Amino acid sequence: MGGDYAPAAPVAGALLALAELDPEHRVQLVGRESVLRAQLDRHLGAEHAALAPHAGRIDFIDAADVIDMADKPTTALRGKPNSSMHVGLKLQVEGKSDAFVSAGNTGAQMAVSTVVLRLHQAVSRPAIATVFPTAREPIVVVDSGANVDCSPAELVTFARLGAAYAECVFGRTNATVGLLSIGEEPEKGNAVVKETHQLLLASGLSFQGNIEGRDLPKGESDRGPFDVVVCDGFVGNIVLKFYEAVAPMMTGLLRKNGADDALLGKSFAHLDYSAYGGAPLLGVNGISIIAHGKSSARALKNAVKVAARAAASRLDAHIGERLGESAPSGVKA
Amino acid sequence: MGGDYAPAAPVAGALLALAELDPEHRVQLVGRESVLRAQLDRHLGAEHAALAPHAGRIDFIDAADVIDMADKPTTALRGKPNSSMHVGLKLQVEGKSDAFVSAGNTGAQMAVSTVVLRLHQAVSRPAIATVFPTAREPIVVVDSGANVDCSPAELVTFARLGAAYAECVFGRTNATVGLLSIGEEPEKGNAVVKETHQLLLASGLSFQGNIEGRDLPKGESDRGPFDVVVCDGFVGNIVLKFYEAVAPMMTGLLRKNGADDALLGKSFAHLDYSAYGGAPLLGVNGISIIAHGKSSARALKNAVKVAARAAASRLDAHIGERLGESAPSGVKA
Repeated sequence: MGGDYAPAAPVAGALLALAELDPEHRVQLVGRESVLRAQLDRHLGAEHAALAPHAGRIDFIDAADVIDMADKPTTALRGKPNSSMHVGLKLQVEGKSDAFVSAGNTGAQMAVSTVVLRLHQAVSRPAIATVFPTAREPIVVVDSGANVDCSPAELVTFARLGAAYAECVFGRTNATVGLLSIGEEPEKGNAVVKETHQLLLASGLSFQGNIEGRDLPKGESDRGPFDVVVCDGFVGNIVLKFYEAVAPMMTGLLRKNGADDALLGKSFAHLDYSAYGGAPLLGVNGISIIAHGKSSARALKNAVKVAARAAASRLDAHIGERLGESAPSGVKA
Repeated sequence: MGGDYAPAAPVAGALLALAELDPEHRVQLVGRESVLRAQLDRHLGAEHAALAPHAGRIDFIDAADVIDMADKPTTALRGKPNSSMHVGLKLQVEGKSDAFVSAGNTGAQMAVSTVVLRLHQAVSRPAIATVFPTAREPIVVVDSGANVDCSPAELVTFARLGAAYAECVFGRTNATVGLLSIGEEPEKGNAVVKETHQLLLASGLSFQGNIEGRDLPKGESDRGPFDVVVCDGFVGNIVLKFYEAVAPMMTGLLRKNGADDALLGKSFAHLDYSAYGGAPLLGVNGISIIAHGKSSARALKNAVKVAARAAASRLDAHIGERLGESAPSGVKA
């Protein structure tokens, strides 16, 4: 029910995802059932008629409350116990669902995810991991907005969470971690970053050292490529939003000077954020994918695929291992 | 004597600047005199022969010590008292020079500038103001790397320094200040930024409120354009280096897909950092312009022109007024 283009974009995104996923996958649409059913009918009666064979793999889960984009997280958490977020996330706790995706109110999703799914033992605050396209492979930046003031220990936890995500969802082997700072030497950075550097050296992670702002768009520093970048959510969010805005600004300048769409498409296709769909809230016991409020049907399709990949790769169990939790019986370490 | 292309780039930069500046301007080349004279002769004997008429407005000031790019600031400050930085900055204290420009060791330049020129009374730490090209007019980002952990009061001082710079050197009237944060509401941001927001509201500055990463490349937020962006040097340096690297990355992608130089030149000319030449160290009693270590002759020419503009617009006196210092006799408020 959330996001700027709901319910059209989420319902279409679910259909598009089912068309691309293996046939054993199903999507549960959680929200006001009558609204969602009517929306699905509209899609099937018009532009997505060809996707009708996949509609049988959609289930409807009714949820009476709707969280508004302007609701404060606590209002949403306590005042709307039957929201699509509460109901959708509880399905995971009950073993009826493997992952949750929303383009709704981010603060509310963080709060409800934390309360309903609860946190891994070693985690004090969950973090958002965002994929940054680079000239090389995409990298994972964590935290990109959930936590503004972080302790060194929390940043080390973010590194473990990000490494598990890069390994499970992007197939990286022994993911390499870089610490975002203002110089490559260990003594460069603010007080928290300098202490974090020392903790990361002793963390057992594949730590590459400090990386700088200039290394982000390259996806590598002088010491080689990295998979994960650790920073607090204040810095991460500023850099993320800056990155999202620089590309359109440059594209606008190129268009004004006569660049054609073919050139722009070929050059910048892999910089398109909607290709990466959603950012997981890491640290919760389960899978909660935060999609951009402006997510299109295509972006939500990709968010559902990210969720499916996270579930299939047992991201949550892998995070438990990374955090040193003993594996539950039946799960191979 | 400093910078990656010394002494060729600084000597050529001085000649190029003199050719564009009014005839009453002179440039003092400070360093090993024999080296500098030989370098000037080489330029006049070859590619810059046409600039010979301007060579008479160059003075040579001998300085025996050379600060290495790898020297620690304290080593340079105490161990090399006859460096070109010490000698060149002392000329200002002695009233023999109006401004200082260097592409040398940034940390050393900050330390020597602070000790030789001293700080304005209300300033506890000097800050670096960097010009960011945007889709609109360029903006001034302060601090962009001098101070990593800043107090709210220091950030407010940076705002005053940046406003004076935008007014004197970029001709802005009553420069508008934005505070870099992760949401436009006053309660968004880390602890320091939230407190700074309140102080800026009461500062008498033309404060626009919080701006976000996405507003930087646009040079405006939903509330309109801004001239100055305030942040600590950790965030500022990361965003600056990221910006410097994003444009070449995107240009590379365009070239690979067949974009021609004419299109790229027309589109991105105003994003070229060398057009802005140098970043002033604000807060010192005098003018000290920090040029990029990789500065070309063209970049250094522009740095000298920025220095001339700062001196002609009485930047230093304007900063004194902005900081509430009583104007020295003979200086109009």
